[in-house]
Amino acid sequence: MELLTRVVESIGPLDGAAMRAARERQDSLTKPRGSLGRLEDLAVRLAGITGRVRPHLEKPAVFVMAADHGVVDEGVSLYPQEVTAQMVANFVRGRAGINVLARHVGARVVVVDVGVRGDTVPAANLVRRKVAAGSGNIARGPAMTREQAVAAVEAGIEVVEAESSRGLDLAGTGDMGIGNTTPSSAVCAVLTGEPVEAVTGRGTGLDDAGLARKCEVIRRALEVNRPDPSDPLDVLARVGGFEIGAIAGVILACAAHRIPVVIDGFVSGAGALIAAGLAPLARDYMIAGHLSAEPGHALVLKHLGLDPLLSLDMRLGEGTGACLGIFLVVAAAKIQTEMATFDEAGVARAGVK
Amino acid sequence: MELLTRVVESIGPLDGAAMRAARERQDSLTKPRGSLGRLEDLAVRLAGITGRVRPHLEKPAVFVMAADHGVVDEGVSLYPQEVTAQMVANFVRGRAGINVLARHVGARVVVVDVGVRGDTVPAANLVRRKVAAGSGNIARGPAMTREQAVAAVEAGIEVVEAESSRGLDLAGTGDMGIGNTTPSSAVCAVLTGEPVEAVTGRGTGLDDAGLARKCEVIRRALEVNRPDPSDPLDVLARVGGFEIGAIAGVILACAAHRIPVVIDGFVSGAGALIAAGLAPLARDYMIAGHLSAEPGHALVLKHLGLDPLLSLDMRLGEGTGACLGIFLVVAAAKIQTEMATFDEAGVARAGVK
Repeated sequence: MELLTRVVESIGPLDGAAMRAARERQDSLTKPRGSLGRLEDLAVRLAGITGRVRPHLEKPAVFVMAADHGVVDEGVSLYPQEVTAQMVANFVRGRAGINVLARHVGARVVVVDVGVRGDTVPAANLVRRKVAAGSGNIARGPAMTREQAVAAVEAGIEVVEAESSRGLDLAGTGDMGIGNTTPSSAVCAVLTGEPVEAVTGRGTGLDDAGLARKCEVIRRALEVNRPDPSDPLDVLARVGGFEIGAIAGVILACAAHRIPVVIDGFVSGAGALIAAGLAPLARDYMIAGHLSAEPGHALVLKHLGLDPLLSLDMRLGEGTGACLGIFLVVAAAKIQTEMATFDEAGVARAGVK
Repeated sequence: MELLTRVVESIGPLDGAAMRAARERQDSLTKPRGSLGRLEDLAVRLAGITGRVRPHLEKPAVFVMAADHGVVDEGVSLYPQEVTAQMVANFVRGRAGINVLARHVGARVVVVDVGVRGDTVPAANLVRRKVAAGSGNIARGPAMTREQAVAAVEAGIEVVEAESSRGLDLAGTGDMGIGNTTPSSAVCAVLTGEPVEAVTGRGTGLDDAGLARKCEVIRRALEVNRPDPSDPLDVLARVGGFEIGAIAGVILACAAHRIPVVIDGFVSGAGALIAAGLAPLARDYMIAGHLSAEPGHALVLKHLGLDPLLSLDMRLGEGTGACLGIFLVVAAAKIQTEMATFDEAGVARAGVK
């Protein structure tokens, strides 16, 4: 808990002076004022996050947090639980969606076992930080103890701090965990105050009956556990999951170290809600990579005050949406650092008409 | 005209068999069915365009067509006309927005002078194919002759065919021309049938009075020139511009050579309308990179039946939106070619719940 407290307390506001200087530079570049739209706003926020008017973002990493969920026993997913470990092996071999997109944007993938049920095989690109072998079935009791919730968040913090020493200037979040949209919906319902039906979707592809069962399971989880909405660690412990906690930790560590962090979809959004609950200032360091097809995600982003960069009807998780967002974040930084000003290029400025 | 006729006649339909095989492959990859949303649809269309189930898109180029416009005399732009040539020099030096974003996606930039008013200085990365030194003032007469319209389109075709021999498997369109949203709005009004006010915006940043004047100039251009909506070359000749014609040529050549072509914003959209008017099948080869902040662009895309990949409130032109689209197109192709199938990865498939 000491580590978590230290990290939360070290999160400060954005650098206003750097943001003003960045906006001024944007307006001096060889393009009509405002004509790069959201890329310009993004460049200004990157200055606020990093404290640098011309940020160089050259060492991105995507953190893929993997864990299992006892609630799978209730029939909330189309896939068997062993797929979590099988997909971790797929990540390690570099053949999953996240690997393809991370290579495409030049980001390294850091896979973390924070709570996979079975054994994961040691590998150079796999961090083994298992808090427990899967969470409890939230339809019948808590997901984990409060101590385990803290341990999950701190695992995320420690992984970022370890990677930071290898060079890290831009982060993305990702998740793997069969069944994990169920605890994510539960966390979102509690922390946004939205009804269960509004934040619950088909996950990997449930039919209508499956969706109705999933909603019922989440309602039962909330009744059985009665999480305290004013206490994010209580929410995580009672109805969350290990990867959700670890994602919250990644976000908090990035905010503390002034590293922009691109949030993936719905499961990462649940982690972001917990991070924002623990440290409201952390929201300023979050960039929403995309809007997921999972219907609750729009409500999560609204609650966090984030506007997604992309909307491609994706719902894979793993950090795939964060990867695409990383591409746009680096684009914004390069516009800010590489484009010529009107004076440098000898281009006439606009008159007024 | 022979070249144009040959190219239009050689455009065929998408490859349906390749598209069916590509969809089948998508469904065998290690992800829930449909979970990569529009990237999956894009991968299927790339198969239809290229005829390859696993397309490798490794040699992208953005074609930036530059020209001047006599209608600038009517006060329709905030920038003086010499900025067109100054920006061409900025492109050649690699310091403009398009250069930064093209480097970021690994695309080469092919700058083409098809009608800049002043002289452009020879450079290795500048193609000089000037049809004339700027178009006529459409508020008072035609932009160009019909022969010049054909020459502009054929310049676009020839540039693509020349680049094709250097290796070209993915193209983007771009434009530079002070004042060119005015002829673009005129072309769009004629070819979509929308009212002038609906397809006319602030361009580089006109105020309300400037926008009203611009609409009035476009209405006058349509009255003076009476372009024939059923004859795209007549529309181009009377109220278009050289870069708009050359963009149409780039698109037609890509369609003929089965190269996917990512369309930039509003000015490229005007070129796309002309290309689609000349060869309706060309639409299947077009991918809309983004939705421009220029209000007429949404109507152009609706008319073309295209759904933009991005919507970032950009309105710079140059091909900047096409570059961001190229990134996503290559991402879709890599998902299709590099991801493991369930069988390859030893991952269990979904049951039915």
